[in-house]
Amino acid sequence: MSLDHPAQKPHDRLAAALESEMGEVNTLIRTRMASEHAPRIPEVTAHLVEAGGKRLRPMLTLAAAKMCGYPGPYHVHLAATVEFIHTATLLHDDVVDESAQRRGRPTANLLWDNKSSVLVGDYLFARSFQLMVETGNLRVLDILSNAAATIAEGEVLQLSAAQDLRTDESIYLKVVRGKTAALFSAATEVGGVIAGVDEAQVEALFDYGDALGIAFQIVDDLLDYQGDTKATGKNVGDDFRERKLTLPVIKAVAQADAEERAFWSRVIEKGKQEDGDLDHALMLLDRHGALEATRDDALGWSAKAKDAMSKLPRSDLREMLIDLADYVVARIS
Amino acid sequence: MSLDHPAQKPHDRLAAALESEMGEVNTLIRTRMASEHAPRIPEVTAHLVEAGGKRLRPMLTLAAAKMCGYPGPYHVHLAATVEFIHTATLLHDDVVDESAQRRGRPTANLLWDNKSSVLVGDYLFARSFQLMVETGNLRVLDILSNAAATIAEGEVLQLSAAQDLRTDESIYLKVVRGKTAALFSAATEVGGVIAGVDEAQVEALFDYGDALGIAFQIVDDLLDYQGDTKATGKNVGDDFRERKLTLPVIKAVAQADAEERAFWSRVIEKGKQEDGDLDHALMLLDRHGALEATRDDALGWSAKAKDAMSKLPRSDLREMLIDLADYVVARIS
Repeated sequence: MSLDHPAQKPHDRLAAALESEMGEVNTLIRTRMASEHAPRIPEVTAHLVEAGGKRLRPMLTLAAAKMCGYPGPYHVHLAATVEFIHTATLLHDDVVDESAQRRGRPTANLLWDNKSSVLVGDYLFARSFQLMVETGNLRVLDILSNAAATIAEGEVLQLSAAQDLRTDESIYLKVVRGKTAALFSAATEVGGVIAGVDEAQVEALFDYGDALGIAFQIVDDLLDYQGDTKATGKNVGDDFRERKLTLPVIKAVAQADAEERAFWSRVIEKGKQEDGDLDHALMLLDRHGALEATRDDALGWSAKAKDAMSKLPRSDLREMLIDLADYVVARIS
Repeated sequence: MSLDHPAQKPHDRLAAALESEMGEVNTLIRTRMASEHAPRIPEVTAHLVEAGGKRLRPMLTLAAAKMCGYPGPYHVHLAATVEFIHTATLLHDDVVDESAQRRGRPTANLLWDNKSSVLVGDYLFARSFQLMVETGNLRVLDILSNAAATIAEGEVLQLSAAQDLRTDESIYLKVVRGKTAALFSAATEVGGVIAGVDEAQVEALFDYGDALGIAFQIVDDLLDYQGDTKATGKNVGDDFRERKLTLPVIKAVAQADAEERAFWSRVIEKGKQEDGDLDHALMLLDRHGALEATRDDALGWSAKAKDAMSKLPRSDLREMLIDLADYVVARIS
């Protein structure tokens, strides 16, 4: 990522094209994160908001609405809604994963406590719901409440699926849709719905967000086994050490003989890892072409995202979103 | 409680009067708690649902709607919504309080883990949003999303206020509205709103739920210091040992001299409790008439609830709700 000129990244081009709307979104987020009565809330949320992050999800909503000709103002509410749901999810994820760091900073559960992370997350969920209700659009409420349920369901599913060798690619996809793609697809879909475009375009916007989110997550899984620590900020093998059954391993397990299966069962299911296991795992992934196949899947989902977006009318924002689908897989191409 | 004939309790009379609707609510709850993909969800929720509980909140919604002449069907959705929000809150509360028991059974966080409680709670919140969106009524969405935010805000406020001697009665009321009254008042208010009654009646329904919820919580606080363990299922002094700054203590602290203040600071703020401290605390509560004053407050809120309900047209359900406001304080009268 650091090799590109910043101004050329599709994410930065989107940020420039949506600068004024993103300003409104950020103002709305700050206003609604405040709490008159509970000072702990702005403390925790400010910590997260200052930590930054790319604000990719709200930009997807703004871009979708704007490219569909929506004049405002409710795309700003929807963008803030999507970011609130995302932030609430991060707070709860850090409790669930017992994480100590996020975006290179200590997590809220470490700085305060799990209690604050759980309850402030709940507060942000409630705030997100207030924001979406203000749009007065029942269809976006339906889409976003369904997305919230899919997210939670995917997270619960992951609890049981992550260390179970029976987890296959279809279960993996359900988890990934929950963890990542459901909010991406809702973010783009509601942009089209609030703009009132026809069903084919709404569906294309959904498909774009869905495929983009899945590609994004698969790339993440892949880089964990073959990434450059400097570029990704992750160490190779983190998922392995955390016994996460990600797509490369699922593919290798599907082709494993009895001896290989016993290995995966020991290191993933039983969590009994020894020196040299990561190297052995990498050798098995290589033997079955699992990283290659995972890479192909990511490229396939990126292509699906671009195909879907090409069904929307031509515009600068559309081109940026198409480039974004390329950019997501650029690190593995 | 065990002295009354069951059929005479207002709660049981409400259950009898609303039997058919509560049957629909229970069916809807069971259907919507299911998850096709994540078997952990029905496991956790079934545990909670089987544990029972009085289902008071959904009955409040059904009673309010029905006494206002609403023919259905969306009071059933709203009643299930309210129960889902309540159940989600319980799951998260047990994580926050590190509870091991609820309603005499091991809590979900103990039987499974905190992760499952957090994520299944999120799932129920999302499901509750879906249910209320199905009513298609934007005003009930507004009321319920505001209630959800008030609940979370009250819970966060409690984190910082519970062991801080500066907590006064106005902060206490905010916490209690968050913990208890916000969902009671939303439960009754949406019943009137979905029935389309006039603003004065909607307001009276809100006031009833608000006052009932506050009375309910104050009684709970009082019984912790003067209750009969057999009747309440709680041990005298549990709140004291857990260093909770409840209303009796707030009242005693407000009148404390320097020496008394040092005592409260040691046992509540610093948590350094010794043998005999509970007895000393009870003596201080008695010295300042704090239990008497707390009892008067509870009776006052019960009277407010009855006053509010008397503004609604006369009906059997109205009488049961009025009796319920008496019943809530019967244990301390």
